[in-house]
Amino acid sequence: MVVSGPSGSGKTTLCRQLEAMGEAVHSVSCTTRKPRPGEVHGKDYFFFSEAEFMEKAAQGEFFEQARVHGNLYGTLKSYVTENLERGVDVVMDIDVQGAAQVRACDDALIRRCHVDVFVSPHDLADLKERLSNRGTESGESLELRMKNALIEIAHWPEYQYTLVSGSRASDLERFRAILLAERMRVARLG
Amino acid sequence: MVVSGPSGSGKTTLCRQLEAMGEAVHSVSCTTRKPRPGEVHGKDYFFFSEAEFMEKAAQGEFFEQARVHGNLYGTLKSYVTENLERGVDVVMDIDVQGAAQVRACDDALIRRCHVDVFVSPHDLADLKERLSNRGTESGESLELRMKNALIEIAHWPEYQYTLVSGSRASDLERFRAILLAERMRVARLG
Repeated sequence: MVVSGPSGSGKTTLCRQLEAMGEAVHSVSCTTRKPRPGEVHGKDYFFFSEAEFMEKAAQGEFFEQARVHGNLYGTLKSYVTENLERGVDVVMDIDVQGAAQVRACDDALIRRCHVDVFVSPHDLADLKERLSNRGTESGESLELRMKNALIEIAHWPEYQYTLVSGSRASDLERFRAILLAERMRVARLG
Repeated sequence: MVVSGPSGSGKTTLCRQLEAMGEAVHSVSCTTRKPRPGEVHGKDYFFFSEAEFMEKAAQGEFFEQARVHGNLYGTLKSYVTENLERGVDVVMDIDVQGAAQVRACDDALIRRCHVDVFVSPHDLADLKERLSNRGTESGESLELRMKNALIEIAHWPEYQYTLVSGSRASDLERFRAILLAERMRVARLG
């Protein structure tokens, strides 16, 4: 299950909560961006140098990769397929470019299991508040981050589901509902 | 949301529970079968004579209709569309013949809102137990009811979802999850 959404949309929290409930594992992405205070290698991200990342990319180890705000992000192919083969669902918190790569993936197992969800703020005021609360990391102005978020949000129609944020409890319930429902889809059982 | 499943699968209970939660209205079907003890006209079914039923059918008032175990069943078109137009979801507890008619319906509103779910017993022993517990109404032998149930179950691949019964709580949670998830489907929002 691929999850995208603008910065501050709460998508990462949703993925972690689903993992905490034992419903899925939250795929740990690789990145070249610097760790934020408190972030742990192997838990929040695998932090790599640009050289290390490019070497893995050259060996085709990434399922998807993207450059966002100047930093590289990617998901290790082996991480996803090993879990799926064991019957464990994987939630991946990736941006719209990465999501498009997963959508185009021709691996049979991935295609059969694939679901994608766009988590969207409720409205512009909500987006602005969310971005303000998450302002410090990139050094970009609120205006630029608003602009980037709106460019991202324009991609929602490419996703199978769109979850418009409400309360935290409702967001988690609806996010989990997508996973529960998709497990019952006949097209996936064939 | 159309729900089918063999007798005793718990589909009617699921529909009622969803209604009790305020998530949807449970469509009251019309039938020519005799009321069971405690069943109320207008709540459990609209009970009609064969002549009354056939007159409504002739006037095209039914959305779907089917003959099951010798009795006629049908759903009033107006009941469904009036609710959908008000933005209220409708769950319809109908058999595999009725479900096929709804699937073939060319009304644009119905097509956009349509979801179908087959509720299946966990295994043969579970089916037998469920049918034994619901034995009295039709006067048919357990063997014949088992045979009919298996013929019905063979239709599960025609449905979008299949819910294999587990615990009552899990069944309701997963049933509701389908409704919550389908409300977020981008294809439905376009």
